[in-house]
Amino acid sequence: MKREVLLYGDTNGNSDMLYFTGLRIPDPFFAFTLKGKKCALINALEIGRARRSKKLDEVFDLTSVGAKESLRGDGAVAAHILKKAKVRALLVPRNFPAYQLEFFRGQGFDVEIAEGGIFPKREIKTKDELGEIAAANLVAAAGFHVAEEMLRQAKIVKNRLVVDGEILTSEMLRTEIEKIAISLGADAMNTIVAAGDQACDPHEVGHGPIAPNSLIVIDIFPRLRESGYFGDMTRTFLKGKASSAQKKLVETVLLAQEVALESVCAGVNGADIHAAVEEVFRRANYKTEMKRGVWSGFFHSTGHGLGLDVHEAPSLSVRDCVLRAGQVVTVEPGLYYRGLGGCRMEDNVAVRKDGAELLSEYHYEWIVE
Amino acid sequence: MKREVLLYGDTNGNSDMLYFTGLRIPDPFFAFTLKGKKCALINALEIGRARRSKKLDEVFDLTSVGAKESLRGDGAVAAHILKKAKVRALLVPRNFPAYQLEFFRGQGFDVEIAEGGIFPKREIKTKDELGEIAAANLVAAAGFHVAEEMLRQAKIVKNRLVVDGEILTSEMLRTEIEKIAISLGADAMNTIVAAGDQACDPHEVGHGPIAPNSLIVIDIFPRLRESGYFGDMTRTFLKGKASSAQKKLVETVLLAQEVALESVCAGVNGADIHAAVEEVFRRANYKTEMKRGVWSGFFHSTGHGLGLDVHEAPSLSVRDCVLRAGQVVTVEPGLYYRGLGGCRMEDNVAVRKDGAELLSEYHYEWIVE
Repeated sequence: MKREVLLYGDTNGNSDMLYFTGLRIPDPFFAFTLKGKKCALINALEIGRARRSKKLDEVFDLTSVGAKESLRGDGAVAAHILKKAKVRALLVPRNFPAYQLEFFRGQGFDVEIAEGGIFPKREIKTKDELGEIAAANLVAAAGFHVAEEMLRQAKIVKNRLVVDGEILTSEMLRTEIEKIAISLGADAMNTIVAAGDQACDPHEVGHGPIAPNSLIVIDIFPRLRESGYFGDMTRTFLKGKASSAQKKLVETVLLAQEVALESVCAGVNGADIHAAVEEVFRRANYKTEMKRGVWSGFFHSTGHGLGLDVHEAPSLSVRDCVLRAGQVVTVEPGLYYRGLGGCRMEDNVAVRKDGAELLSEYHYEWIVE
Repeated sequence: MKREVLLYGDTNGNSDMLYFTGLRIPDPFFAFTLKGKKCALINALEIGRARRSKKLDEVFDLTSVGAKESLRGDGAVAAHILKKAKVRALLVPRNFPAYQLEFFRGQGFDVEIAEGGIFPKREIKTKDELGEIAAANLVAAAGFHVAEEMLRQAKIVKNRLVVDGEILTSEMLRTEIEKIAISLGADAMNTIVAAGDQACDPHEVGHGPIAPNSLIVIDIFPRLRESGYFGDMTRTFLKGKASSAQKKLVETVLLAQEVALESVCAGVNGADIHAAVEEVFRRANYKTEMKRGVWSGFFHSTGHGLGLDVHEAPSLSVRDCVLRAGQVVTVEPGLYYRGLGGCRMEDNVAVRKDGAELLSEYHYEWIVE
């Protein structure tokens, strides 16, 4: 049975919608295939822009269709259009809203939920898409540069860093990083600038004064406004003097990242790359364990896919996942110990038949004097 | 039958998750009620922060529960916890993912999809929530101030505006508005700065040089980072000299906004407010119509609810919707005609028993000389 694809969502939060329609529309709407054509059902507010989209073959006007047929709600209008075209079977993505699923089944459609991603092609990036991800990483690199310069200018005054008479905080660094991103046409929302023990919660964005001689994890994942593609890079810095324990921690993470980057290749199992990282840490005597409800060591995956979503397939984790040429993954081992702090180093690569192509570039000098 | 609420999503894109958990977690996870307790199922990466949340009564560790029970996937772990607690019936929100709906039904749960919002209380804002929305609107007001100052400094050179030797563009104004928002702890993503005919697509963000003597619609909806609440304001400006047609357009929109603002009150039907706005436009001879696939006139709703989502219930539109005290709505009539340009004026009010309380403040002087 020929199934038409049916999607529902806005294009900021739902990347399949962005991929399929090429539009930037903040409110949810329907998009679908119909006899080989790519279609969308759009309200008056957006229809002008939608009709100019190069990705869509046909745009239906929600307002006029709805008015003409005395239909209520956009689900009813979409069902009406599909029925009129004799469509009986639909394929929807996993995140299709439950109430829309019930509605279309109630309307007599045979609705199947896709097993994996609804557009498996999204994992295999085109040359243009690789260019977008690399461009987003130029924004991330500009962010590191701004942060590093502020750390360089900072003076150590007792247990504080001071820039232009102000105590340097995570918030100040984040603000400057996100401002440069905006100037370069990207949003770097939720940039992480976490120092000391704060970095031991890897998704804690970081707040308050940054102490000298303390590891600072900076994780920037800017999204280009025009295309919607993400970059995702992490560097760890320290202003002042590093202890031997801090040096060993950073050097071990860098070694693990090198091992992982060298392992990436089409046909390789992501789980093996993740295991190789764990092995580097084990050999250097870094334990991963949970104590009193808190994890320490290496307790996230080695990497994840990247594109229109900041986290997408494939993964470099405990799950089996054989890499294919054209996929893009982050490579981001990290170690986190309360008292010592955290370190993560993250780059992005395109998977190739004969290895990996780096899509991110920034140096690894981490001690700022 | 007692139903436990089950939610799934990240807290950036899914405001019910943010409302329920108070966490900022970028990857989807499960949250649920269990015998009067508010619970979440969290992975190693976030569990430290989650356990410190004041909104949650119990946090389950996905990694250790999953490992112990040899379960695969977080859906299986959530189902395991719920079954162990003898839960049989679940209530899920409308946007619950289709595949999770199928999974939990397959596991033998009786799953009902909520009719409206799953937390109807979200519509009725507390004093604190009103304060957050007002604070977000201070950010929007700061954005208008920055934009107005740039327009004031601009010199008219032939058909262009020039600031510091550069041709003034929508992008330049947007960048400065979004930078000030970041400095004030908010994200003003997708800020609209649309001049001339560009504003006639009300969700077109605007691009390229801004012409003098041209209407400029600026729509800023900043989201406070700390709390997640949105503000949403629009002003229309013009640099240079306004024509009588432009003056009539702006004055009519301002009149319509005044009429709408004065009509907001608990017990009033939003559809009546919308009709009152349409009546103001009709009397001033502004037609709304579609020609060759493009709408002109007034073709969006008068307003919408605002809170953790920039668009939420209730609405001031053609649909019947009786307002209740404590709701927050935008009031944003607009008129759009190609050749003449667009005008929209938007403020936010809290619905009160005896009227409306303004939550946004910025002047309405629109001609910048």
